[in-house]
Amino acid sequence: MIPKKIFFATTMLLFSVLAFSQNVDSLAIKKITDEVMFNGKAYSNLRVLCKTIGQRLSGSTGMYKAEQWGLKVLTEDGAEKVYLQECMVPHWVRGAKEEAKFVTHKGIPDQSFKVLSIGNAVGTGKVGVTAKVMEVKNFEELNRRKDEVKGKIVFYNYPFNKTLLKGAYGDAVRFRSNGASAAAKYGALAVIVRSVTAADDDNPHTGALRYNDSFPKIPAVAISTKDADRLSNSLKKESANANLFIKTNCVMMADTIGHNVIGEIKGTEFPDEYITIGGHLDSWDPAEGANDDGAGMVQSIEILRAFRDAGYKPKRTIRIVLFANEENGTRGGLKYAEVAKEKNEKHIMAMESDGGSEYPRGFGCGMTKAQYVKVETWKKYFEPYDADKFSFSEGGGGGADIGPLQTNLKTPQFGLNTTAQRYFNFHHSAIDVFENVNEQELHLGSAVMAAMVYLVDKYGL
Amino acid sequence: MIPKKIFFATTMLLFSVLAFSQNVDSLAIKKITDEVMFNGKAYSNLRVLCKTIGQRLSGSTGMYKAEQWGLKVLTEDGAEKVYLQECMVPHWVRGAKEEAKFVTHKGIPDQSFKVLSIGNAVGTGKVGVTAKVMEVKNFEELNRRKDEVKGKIVFYNYPFNKTLLKGAYGDAVRFRSNGASAAAKYGALAVIVRSVTAADDDNPHTGALRYNDSFPKIPAVAISTKDADRLSNSLKKESANANLFIKTNCVMMADTIGHNVIGEIKGTEFPDEYITIGGHLDSWDPAEGANDDGAGMVQSIEILRAFRDAGYKPKRTIRIVLFANEENGTRGGLKYAEVAKEKNEKHIMAMESDGGSEYPRGFGCGMTKAQYVKVETWKKYFEPYDADKFSFSEGGGGGADIGPLQTNLKTPQFGLNTTAQRYFNFHHSAIDVFENVNEQELHLGSAVMAAMVYLVDKYGL
Repeated sequence: MIPKKIFFATTMLLFSVLAFSQNVDSLAIKKITDEVMFNGKAYSNLRVLCKTIGQRLSGSTGMYKAEQWGLKVLTEDGAEKVYLQECMVPHWVRGAKEEAKFVTHKGIPDQSFKVLSIGNAVGTGKVGVTAKVMEVKNFEELNRRKDEVKGKIVFYNYPFNKTLLKGAYGDAVRFRSNGASAAAKYGALAVIVRSVTAADDDNPHTGALRYNDSFPKIPAVAISTKDADRLSNSLKKESANANLFIKTNCVMMADTIGHNVIGEIKGTEFPDEYITIGGHLDSWDPAEGANDDGAGMVQSIEILRAFRDAGYKPKRTIRIVLFANEENGTRGGLKYAEVAKEKNEKHIMAMESDGGSEYPRGFGCGMTKAQYVKVETWKKYFEPYDADKFSFSEGGGGGADIGPLQTNLKTPQFGLNTTAQRYFNFHHSAIDVFENVNEQELHLGSAVMAAMVYLVDKYGL
Repeated sequence: MIPKKIFFATTMLLFSVLAFSQNVDSLAIKKITDEVMFNGKAYSNLRVLCKTIGQRLSGSTGMYKAEQWGLKVLTEDGAEKVYLQECMVPHWVRGAKEEAKFVTHKGIPDQSFKVLSIGNAVGTGKVGVTAKVMEVKNFEELNRRKDEVKGKIVFYNYPFNKTLLKGAYGDAVRFRSNGASAAAKYGALAVIVRSVTAADDDNPHTGALRYNDSFPKIPAVAISTKDADRLSNSLKKESANANLFIKTNCVMMADTIGHNVIGEIKGTEFPDEYITIGGHLDSWDPAEGANDDGAGMVQSIEILRAFRDAGYKPKRTIRIVLFANEENGTRGGLKYAEVAKEKNEKHIMAMESDGGSEYPRGFGCGMTKAQYVKVETWKKYFEPYDADKFSFSEGGGGGADIGPLQTNLKTPQFGLNTTAQRYFNFHHSAIDVFENVNEQELHLGSAVMAAMVYLVDKYGL
C-alpha cells in the first residue's frame, strides 16, 4: 500500500501535469483562433473568389479560373508546395434561356414561370415539351396514380418541412435527385420540382439529379416556392386543362479535365502522416457559390495561414484540398482517395466544411468508437466558442469529398456543423453570393476547424 | 424495509409516470413549436412593422404608429384584452443633416466623414464645433494625456474585439455610453466614437449616451469603422494640424407621453399569477429596428397565436408587453414593474427577447438557485432545437425591460440568447432592416420561447 502522503503527492503531480498540458493547449488554441478572428483572410479571399470569378461549375471556364485562384491563394497563405491533381469531371452546360408557360388557358393572368434546369438533366430540344401537368405531393401519390402519368409533365410539389430543421433538406431533396426517373418510369415527358428551400420567394434552386438508366432520360426543372404555389393554384382552375410548354437547352457534354487543387506543409515529426482539410472548388452556375462552397475552401486555407502567422508548426503533414466536382459527380473526392490508397499513404484525419458559412456548432465525427472517445475529451476546448456539439457515427462520413477516404482507408472524418437555417435559402440559387456570408461566422468556423486540427495533429487519433 | 418486489413495482410505476409526463410534455411542446415553424406569423408581422412604420424612436410619430400596430396585431393574434400603459418618455430628435469634415488641410483627398449623432446628445448649434482632433485608444490613454484634451475634439478609436464573441459589445460600448462626459471633464469640445460593430464598412452606428451632470454636455457622434481608420490615418499625416468641423442638429425636447402596449390572456387556473413576455417597441431612427427589437416583439406576440392555434390554454395569465423606450431611458420597463409592485401582482416569470433574430441557443436565467435547478431539468426539451444552453446568474436580470421586475418583485428572468455574431453588424444602424432577418431563425426563437413559457406555466417555478 502506498503511504497516503506519497499517494497524495503523486496524484497532485499527475493533476498538475494534466492541468499544465490542458493550459498549454488552451493557450495554443487561443493563439491560433485569435489569429483567425483578428487577422483572418478567409473573408477577403472569399470576396475575390466570388467577385472576380463567380460560378465555377465543373468543366466551365470558371472552374479553370478558380483552380488558378486556388494555387495562388494557397501559395500566399502558407503552403510550401502547391499542385494540381488531375481527374475527369462531367461537363454539363445549362445553355441559353430556359422557360415554362401555359400555352392554352383562359382568363388567368400571369402564366409564365421562372425555371432552372436541374443539373445533369437533358434539355427539351428546340421544340420544347408541351403537355398537361400532373401535380403530386410525393412518390407515394405518383405510384398510386401511375396510370395517369403517361404523356404528362409531373410536378412534384413537396414542401420543405420547416419543423425538421437540419433534416429538412435531406427529406425534400429526393424529388430533385430521383424524381425525373421515377416519373419517366410511368411515361412522363418532363418533371417540375418545387425548390428545396425554407424560403418563400421567387428564387429557383438547382442541384444535381441522377438518372436511372432503366428509364428514358427526361427534362427536369426547378421552380421557386412561390411559383410552385402559383402553379398549384392555377392547376385547380381552368388551366387544369391547359398545356404547359417547357423549353430548356441544357446538355451533358463529354467528360473533361478538372483538378483537385492541393497545398501542403510538411510535418516536422511525422511527415508521412497526412491530415486532409478541404472544401469543394466547383459551384452551381446561377451565382457565386459563396456559401456552397467558397466558404469551405477559404476556411480551410485560413488554417494554413493562421498556423503560420501564429507560429505553430504541425507535426504531421497538412494538406489543404480544394476538391473538384462535388456537386455533380464527386470525382475529385474519389480521385483523391484512390491516389491515397495507391500510394499507401497514412491518413490520420480528414475534415470538410460544406454546410454553409453560418455559426459553427461543432463536428459530425465519422470514426471508430475508440477514436471518438478521445475526441470527446477535447470538447472543453470548443466550449468557449459555443462549438462543442459533437455527433458520432461509427465509420460514417464527414462530407461528400472526404467520404471516399473513409471507404478506402478508414480515415477518421470531421464534418463542420453549423446552425444551417439560412443556408438552404441561398443554396444552389442566384442568391448564394458573398453578401450572404458574415465575416465573424465564417472566421469562427475556420477557427474551430483549426483548433481540432491542432489537437489531432498534436495527439493523434 | 419494503419488500424488493413492491419496491421494484413502485419504482417502475414512478418511472412510468415520469416517462408518461415527459412524453406528454414533449408532444405538447412539439405541437406548439410545429405551429410556430409551419404557420408562424412573426415574420409577416415584422414585415408590416418594418415596411409600413419603420423607425419608432421614443416620442416620434413612428412610436405612436407602432403602438397602434401593436394593439392591432395583439388583438388579431389572440389577446383577450389589449391596452396601453402610459409612461413619460424622453423625446430626443436628431434634426437635419449631420456633417464632419476637415476644414484646413493640405493634399489629402476625401476629407469628409459620415456621422450619426449619438442618442441623447446635445447638438453643436448652428456654428458647429471646429477644433483639432485628439485620437485616443481608450480611457486609460485619455486620462494619461488629459493635459492635451482642452479645446479639442476627442476621437475614441477603440476597436471591437472580435475574439470576445458575445462579450465584444459590452467591452466596446463604454466609449459610446460614457465617452462624452469623460472627455468633457478635461475640457473637450466634442467627441467622435468609432462604431461599436464587428463590421468593416461605411455604416455608422448610433445608440445612447449618458451624460454625467458634473461636466458640460458636449456633442458626440459615431463614425463607421472604415471612416475611423481613415480619420486615424489622416491624423498621422498633414491633417494632424488641421481643424475638423462637426455640425449636428440634435436636441433633447421635454419628456412626452409614450406607452407600454399590453395584450393579455387570462389563466384558466391561476388568473392572478402573471407571466410577462416581451420585446421593446422603440427603435433607433436610422432604419427599421428589425432586429432591435422588432424581432423580440413579433416573437413574443407569436407565442399567443401559437398557443391559441395549437389549442393550448395557459393556467396562468400571460401578458405580452411591447415595452416603451428601452433604447434611451428604459422608462417602459420601469413603469411596468412599478405598477406591478403597486398592485401587489404575483409575477412568476418574465422573458425578454432583445438579442437579435439569430439562431436561438438558450436562455440567460436570472433567478434563485432553487428555481434554476428546476429549469435545468427541462434542458432535454430544448435539445431537439439546439437551444439547450442555459446560463445562470443568481438574482440577475434577463434584459433591460424586465430587469426592474427582478428588482421590484424578484421575478425570475429569462433572456433569449442567440448566436449573435451578425447582430452587431446591423444594430442601431441604417442596415437594421427586415431583409437582415431570417424567417426560420426568427420563428425558431419564438418556438423555444413558447416551449419555456409552456413549462413554467404548467409547473410553476
